[in-house]
Amino acid sequence: MDQDIRNLLEEKKYAEIQKLLKDIKPQDIALMLEEMSDAEIPIVFRLLPKEIAADTFVEMSPDSQKLLINCFTDAELKAVLDDMFLDDTVDVIEEMPANVVKRILNQTDPQSRKWINEVLKYPKDSAGTLMTMEYVNLKKDWTVKQSFDRIRKTAVDKETIYTCYVTDGTRKLIGRVSLRTMMLNSYETVIGDIMETNVISVDTDADKEFVASQFSKYDLNAIPVVDKENRIVGIITVDDAMDVMEDEATEDISMMAAVTPSDTPYLDQSVWRIWLNRVPWLMLLMISATFTGLIINTYEATLSSLSPLLFACIPMLMDTGGNAGSQTSVTIIRGLALDEIHFKDLFKVVWKEIRVSVLLALSLSVVCFGKLLLIDNLIFGYDYTVKLSALIAVALLFTVVIAKVVGCMLPLLAKKVKLDPAVVASPFITTIVDALSLIIYCNISVAVLA
Amino acid sequence: MDQDIRNLLEEKKYAEIQKLLKDIKPQDIALMLEEMSDAEIPIVFRLLPKEIAADTFVEMSPDSQKLLINCFTDAELKAVLDDMFLDDTVDVIEEMPANVVKRILNQTDPQSRKWINEVLKYPKDSAGTLMTMEYVNLKKDWTVKQSFDRIRKTAVDKETIYTCYVTDGTRKLIGRVSLRTMMLNSYETVIGDIMETNVISVDTDADKEFVASQFSKYDLNAIPVVDKENRIVGIITVDDAMDVMEDEATEDISMMAAVTPSDTPYLDQSVWRIWLNRVPWLMLLMISATFTGLIINTYEATLSSLSPLLFACIPMLMDTGGNAGSQTSVTIIRGLALDEIHFKDLFKVVWKEIRVSVLLALSLSVVCFGKLLLIDNLIFGYDYTVKLSALIAVALLFTVVIAKVVGCMLPLLAKKVKLDPAVVASPFITTIVDALSLIIYCNISVAVLA
Repeated sequence: MDQDIRNLLEEKKYAEIQKLLKDIKPQDIALMLEEMSDAEIPIVFRLLPKEIAADTFVEMSPDSQKLLINCFTDAELKAVLDDMFLDDTVDVIEEMPANVVKRILNQTDPQSRKWINEVLKYPKDSAGTLMTMEYVNLKKDWTVKQSFDRIRKTAVDKETIYTCYVTDGTRKLIGRVSLRTMMLNSYETVIGDIMETNVISVDTDADKEFVASQFSKYDLNAIPVVDKENRIVGIITVDDAMDVMEDEATEDISMMAAVTPSDTPYLDQSVWRIWLNRVPWLMLLMISATFTGLIINTYEATLSSLSPLLFACIPMLMDTGGNAGSQTSVTIIRGLALDEIHFKDLFKVVWKEIRVSVLLALSLSVVCFGKLLLIDNLIFGYDYTVKLSALIAVALLFTVVIAKVVGCMLPLLAKKVKLDPAVVASPFITTIVDALSLIIYCNISVAVLA
Repeated sequence: MDQDIRNLLEEKKYAEIQKLLKDIKPQDIALMLEEMSDAEIPIVFRLLPKEIAADTFVEMSPDSQKLLINCFTDAELKAVLDDMFLDDTVDVIEEMPANVVKRILNQTDPQSRKWINEVLKYPKDSAGTLMTMEYVNLKKDWTVKQSFDRIRKTAVDKETIYTCYVTDGTRKLIGRVSLRTMMLNSYETVIGDIMETNVISVDTDADKEFVASQFSKYDLNAIPVVDKENRIVGIITVDDAMDVMEDEATEDISMMAAVTPSDTPYLDQSVWRIWLNRVPWLMLLMISATFTGLIINTYEATLSSLSPLLFACIPMLMDTGGNAGSQTSVTIIRGLALDEIHFKDLFKVVWKEIRVSVLLALSLSVVCFGKLLLIDNLIFGYDYTVKLSALIAVALLFTVVIAKVVGCMLPLLAKKVKLDPAVVASPFITTIVDALSLIIYCNISVAVLA
């Protein structure tokens, strides 16, 4: 497809390109345009049918959007902006440099411009930054017929007509009625009689992760955003909630891998940006890992006098502790994010993890003991005596139990003191578990072998 | 709220409870019921207004649902089932033991029963298991008015009326028309003239992760599921797609932490189940970590003769290698899951990671070198000479670069050979990176100090 269009471009067969584009969805056209050169993008974009130009524009990357805006005449820019919903316009503006933003605002009608400037003031990652003002507003004394007439007249400008909101004279939200409900009632039915009064809504400063969870929990199509007086300020629709869910999961995953999260897709990130997102954590973790070095140096002479084989098991111990801790911390962090676990469950969780860790620790210790005695000793010929193998196995047992208890407590405590569990987990858990397990290992070695 | 209802229950003030329940959403009632005793649940459930009984039932946990079904009379069971959409009925059936399933199917009408039995045959995690047959079916020669009449008559039984599908006489999918489009046209407009013919659809055996990604990509409200002859078999709605997105992210997160994924919320999992999901991976990782032990034993005598301080840095090296590898592998795995990275980007990704890793490695090596010389040497008094510190820093440099190159290549190669990158990543990357970096460290030490 790309190749067909490329060929037609070279032959300047624009009418043919237009015909091809009619059958492709805006999202796919946007992906195609991303692969084209800076010179080709504006040419092909101008060949798009008017109805899908704005839909395609909003799907493109910020860099491509900036390129296009710089190529557009004022009239072209205005035409695209008029067809965009305001939450998408805000998304574009947030990625543009000041001079482009100025141009965009100049081509927007005064009411929209006022709205956009209001929205840009809301805190980052809040409900306010996701919403649009293009919702259907009904009055409770209207009939279904009057509402339908209203919807037909204004639908083309509304982000959604499937969920309508009922307000009083002061824009206070008093109810919600779905198009489905209206269709199931006669034309003369009064809205006030069929509307739902217990409406799920969010505040303008609600966290976007919370907003997305409300969509997921109540299977909503749209959510109204209200101010402190319960006046409706805007709505958020389910497609934006899905994007938020995806972004939030990506954010948590990044932080659990000790990387500062980024909105930009990986292939679009510069080497410096990636370096910047990774180096602080890697540095922090390296420095905290040197504590283990200090502990080893402290015990070094003692350990080598007891048995040179003691050092060989240190990486295995530390790795196993780290993995055991991650299994737990990642599970708890995800449970916190999905609202399945709360701080009040602390004792339940710790008790569960203690039991699981004892079972795991026993399984691992037995296998470790057997392996050292039978394989390393008999086959490879290293002098792992029963005593030595047993102490290593016991150290492993302690390591796994400590790792899991620390791994479940730290995220819960972080949540309690309003820190992001995903950020806190990685560095602290590794450091604490490594240090504790090493100290215990060295002390057990001394106690048993000396 | 819970406490109020508990008190009213004890005082047997059922009418009061009914009044309270009217104002609570089904999802919240379900959460409340989960906290109640087995004796209380059926009592409170029977007090629910009929309109929300089914909505509440589908939100409850499988255990609670089983409890209720066992308490229900056949008539009560039938009443709830009749109000449920078939995709929810299938979800319930999938969690019930055989005798309960038999009872459910007995209380279902023959057409629904036939449908359910068909759906249960589809592969696990496929589109077929998510769909429902309760969609609006229009004909292309109908007018908008005729379509509205049809919708009004049947809407109460449809999962969604906002997206309607146009089929020919043989149920072949020929178009799609939204309720919005119909509302924006006059009553006499013919459906065939306003319908969209290029319809995004999925096959019955499409992976559910792919289905969810289509919702996200095309901002859909519903997707039709078709068979090989493009005949519509059912539809999937956006609320189910959101649940799939959440589950798929949880699954990937679990696998990256070396835990077998589970559908059940953590607090509902038994200790044995958790042990079973963690032990194979922990065991595998522990055993692969013992390779490092073998390598250390091989070089042990050599290393201690060169300098006892060499052992102290091993944990720091291995940890940093592990963290550096994770940063990369997790980023690439997530990029693959979101369709932002593909196998064809292999060289682009490897080249990017090489550059990032060199920058990171240099940053870390310099800090490590400085720390060993200035802090460990001058302050703590360990004999880290310039030569020793330099060789440790160089080993660290190699470690980080290797970790990141391995960390980005393995997930991409896994994807290419159709293995799940998230499963493959953790064990293999750690093992390979640990072994390689240790071998390099020991060899550099020998080369420089011997």
